[in-house]
Amino acid sequence: MKLLTVDTIDEALEKIHTRVKAWRLETETILLGETASGGYFPDGIADKGAGRVLAEDIYARGDIPAFRRAVVDGYAVIAADTAGAGDAIPAFLKMAGAARMGKPPGFSIRSGECAYVPTGGMIPAGADAVVMAEYAEVSGDGVAVYEAAAPGRGIAEAGEDLHAGELIARRGTVIRPQEIGACAAAGISSVRVFAPLCLAVISTGDELVPPEQEPQPGEVRDINTRALTALAMRRGYRVVCAKVIPDNEAAIEAAVRKALPLCDIVIISGGSSKGEKDFTAGIIDRVTDGGVFSGGLAVKPGKPAIFGWDAENKTLLAGLPGHPVSAMMVFEIILGRLIDELFGCVRRTFPVTARISCNVPGASGKTLLLPVILRMDETGYLAEPVFGKSGMITTLTRADGYAVIDLNKEGLRKDEPVLVHLL
Amino acid sequence: MKLLTVDTIDEALEKIHTRVKAWRLETETILLGETASGGYFPDGIADKGAGRVLAEDIYARGDIPAFRRAVVDGYAVIAADTAGAGDAIPAFLKMAGAARMGKPPGFSIRSGECAYVPTGGMIPAGADAVVMAEYAEVSGDGVAVYEAAAPGRGIAEAGEDLHAGELIARRGTVIRPQEIGACAAAGISSVRVFAPLCLAVISTGDELVPPEQEPQPGEVRDINTRALTALAMRRGYRVVCAKVIPDNEAAIEAAVRKALPLCDIVIISGGSSKGEKDFTAGIIDRVTDGGVFSGGLAVKPGKPAIFGWDAENKTLLAGLPGHPVSAMMVFEIILGRLIDELFGCVRRTFPVTARISCNVPGASGKTLLLPVILRMDETGYLAEPVFGKSGMITTLTRADGYAVIDLNKEGLRKDEPVLVHLL
Repeated sequence: MKLLTVDTIDEALEKIHTRVKAWRLETETILLGETASGGYFPDGIADKGAGRVLAEDIYARGDIPAFRRAVVDGYAVIAADTAGAGDAIPAFLKMAGAARMGKPPGFSIRSGECAYVPTGGMIPAGADAVVMAEYAEVSGDGVAVYEAAAPGRGIAEAGEDLHAGELIARRGTVIRPQEIGACAAAGISSVRVFAPLCLAVISTGDELVPPEQEPQPGEVRDINTRALTALAMRRGYRVVCAKVIPDNEAAIEAAVRKALPLCDIVIISGGSSKGEKDFTAGIIDRVTDGGVFSGGLAVKPGKPAIFGWDAENKTLLAGLPGHPVSAMMVFEIILGRLIDELFGCVRRTFPVTARISCNVPGASGKTLLLPVILRMDETGYLAEPVFGKSGMITTLTRADGYAVIDLNKEGLRKDEPVLVHLL
Repeated sequence: MKLLTVDTIDEALEKIHTRVKAWRLETETILLGETASGGYFPDGIADKGAGRVLAEDIYARGDIPAFRRAVVDGYAVIAADTAGAGDAIPAFLKMAGAARMGKPPGFSIRSGECAYVPTGGMIPAGADAVVMAEYAEVSGDGVAVYEAAAPGRGIAEAGEDLHAGELIARRGTVIRPQEIGACAAAGISSVRVFAPLCLAVISTGDELVPPEQEPQPGEVRDINTRALTALAMRRGYRVVCAKVIPDNEAAIEAAVRKALPLCDIVIISGGSSKGEKDFTAGIIDRVTDGGVFSGGLAVKPGKPAIFGWDAENKTLLAGLPGHPVSAMMVFEIILGRLIDELFGCVRRTFPVTARISCNVPGASGKTLLLPVILRMDETGYLAEPVFGKSGMITTLTRADGYAVIDLNKEGLRKDEPVLVHLL
């Protein structure tokens, strides 16, 4: 195996991108809403769209609204007919009819005429303004208008919300309720989204037992299968396998080989250090035919992280640390970012701006990922570091997010601004 | 019907809380993870826990870890035996054995002895420190130790991560990957979470057609069923019914009466103004036997919002504006907050701190909910208002979040700090 240098986060990501550009990102069509039947769904309406990432630009097919409509309850008029009208001298207009919601008015307005239009009602042809009902008074078969209306007043033009052909949401948009609403307005009930990338989690260690098993002396319950599975799913991956395997080189290699053709990414946690039972580097190099391309990350926690590329199956292999916190942080900073970058995600996350609550030494040549608790005071957020050994999962249950301290920075001084990525 | 005053957001929420305290919040048990079988799940492992809200405090049942273990690869020693050792004068110790991962060592250490222990391995009885392998050298059947170890060095005590009985996560915690991980460590595979509250969305209007239907002149596609459904689900509600009904008082009332016994909350959007076809207030008052308790919200957009309480079914009725943006903002500020307050949610959201990009006039006596786009500059986030009529759903597709401008505030000056709630 070739000697490998330690990469920065950006270097590792760039090397990964160079390989995974061989992926043809799959897409799938999903339905937005299932309200057509209008029935009762005791288990709840299925939510297929929310949180998925658009794989296509979505355009309005027609004008929204498709017709000119009133934005107030009132009287559709020809603006010129109301010139000079005011509290003292109303303009008297003949009532030509009343528009009904959801129907074309069936008549038009000529000079000297007006028509009642409810909010949202279609403006009769000929009219170019709507006077609010509060500024008018019905008298006999006519209406006294106490306001001079400017043309266009009280009217939403056809296409005012969206013109035919206008962009509703672009590729990479994470679908939110409002995108679902805008698609509904445009009559779009299905959209193409990125299919999740498939991922396997293999957690290795002689000391590990599955979480549902009672550990014997010397054993501990595995955290990484469940925690990395949940994290991967939150980031938009589909986890197709999560298993615990002892430090048996042949068994780990067999599990990896089985996962390779079925997955886009295979994670092996544990065994990425240099100890006698740390087989990960050797296994990855063997199954990928020398495809290890990154032998460590200049990040704390998380240094023992190895990446390899299986060109035959186009599968990325990631050897993550066994310590759950290190494994989760490396997952987040590398594989969490990777999927966002591949899908071109728009607006997936907004890190919180905060001030650090105390001096924090840097990690000398490593990027420090510092779990923090966020507190709000009168000047904004304060980020308090959560201190704890990297193997302690409670470091992360206590944290609201993590701050990234650049590897070239000697540390942070109390009150320095930091960006906190929510966990 | 009694005359009703307009409520502030806080007044309306307080009135709602007074009624809904009659709810007995249901809970349900969910499984965390399904890794036991270790098989392949082509459709992906089900994610039942993430995002749910704990309805119980979760405690560690035993110490985690359950035994003293090494945090480095090295030699377990009795610290006193290494007193005075250094680069020049090593302490020579007899090798008593080697601990294996996942097994009790099966031997103990006496004065003058040491034993190899891998990271994570169980410390043999008698030892009180671990010297890193880098500071020791095997020579014959003994080990030369070049470092004076302090008692406890290189050792994680039993219970160092969590002591038996210690709190892992409290009621109200939104379950994240790290909580799933901590539960795995503690052998907790199922937890009690709040059952979602059941909600129906009834969108009313003669002009509305379901999104999948082609509108005729004067008609528009309904937005609220899909948008409010998606929003409600994102906030943790279970939507059991979403339907579009014309402005037919009897039909709306029938749909509401059908939904009341099946739901915790029934939303009627549209018809909450004072126009001739605005039946909502009358219907809510009739079906609740005079239970309307709030006749308007001092909020912009969203003033026409009515709340009623059906004491018989213990169901909250919400008459929301027909304009999608108003309906969504009122939902968010009232029903979004309600579920978080009822469940006692911890850490559900972190609003972003920003500066407003321009002067914004207030809404004179109303709380202004201002959709904004977030941009980052060198000093932090800048919140740029999205201007648009409240009926325009694109106001919200363009927005990243909304700022809340208090009803007592005359407006915001450029660069004033604002809290932005993400949408």
